[in-house]
Amino acid sequence: MKALVHITLKPGVLDPQGKAIENALSHFGFEGVRDVRQGKYIELDLPDGDHADAEAAVKEMCERLLANTVIENYRVEIVDQT
Amino acid sequence: MKALVHITLKPGVLDPQGKAIENALSHFGFEGVRDVRQGKYIELDLPDGDHADAEAAVKEMCERLLANTVIENYRVEIVDQT
Repeated sequence: MKALVHITLKPGVLDPQGKAIENALSHFGFEGVRDVRQGKYIELDLPDGDHADAEAAVKEMCERLLANTVIENYRVEIVDQT
Repeated sequence: MKALVHITLKPGVLDPQGKAIENALSHFGFEGVRDVRQGKYIELDLPDGDHADAEAAVKEMCERLLANTVIENYRVEIVDQT
């Protein structure tokens, strides 16, 4: 099965990368795009097993390694492979 | 409304960042995690309007700026704001 992890900056944390995208889009002529936020999206392959156990393990990976929980939120989703 | 954009490396494209995460996880004692792939997740605020038009505009942004379509795939989702 697979774990899909979204890591996003907490609201209120400055996002210079998002701001750069916003400026570039406006420069390219795309008007009206506001509040661009760039985050990370990580896919992990896990051995098949219990979804709840896998979710707990991936949340621990986020806490310990993948996310900086001072400034970032994370969201974990476990899906069966197609 | 919001556009949620996932940008992922195409299958077969080397992902050194994902590999580094995989090695670090194994070092931290998380066993069995394989094939880690890191992508980008971008949220954009758009003026309310037609979903199909918005999707077309965001796809054009991906083609022209957000994604490197030689090595990356992108997926666009338009959602109403909650």
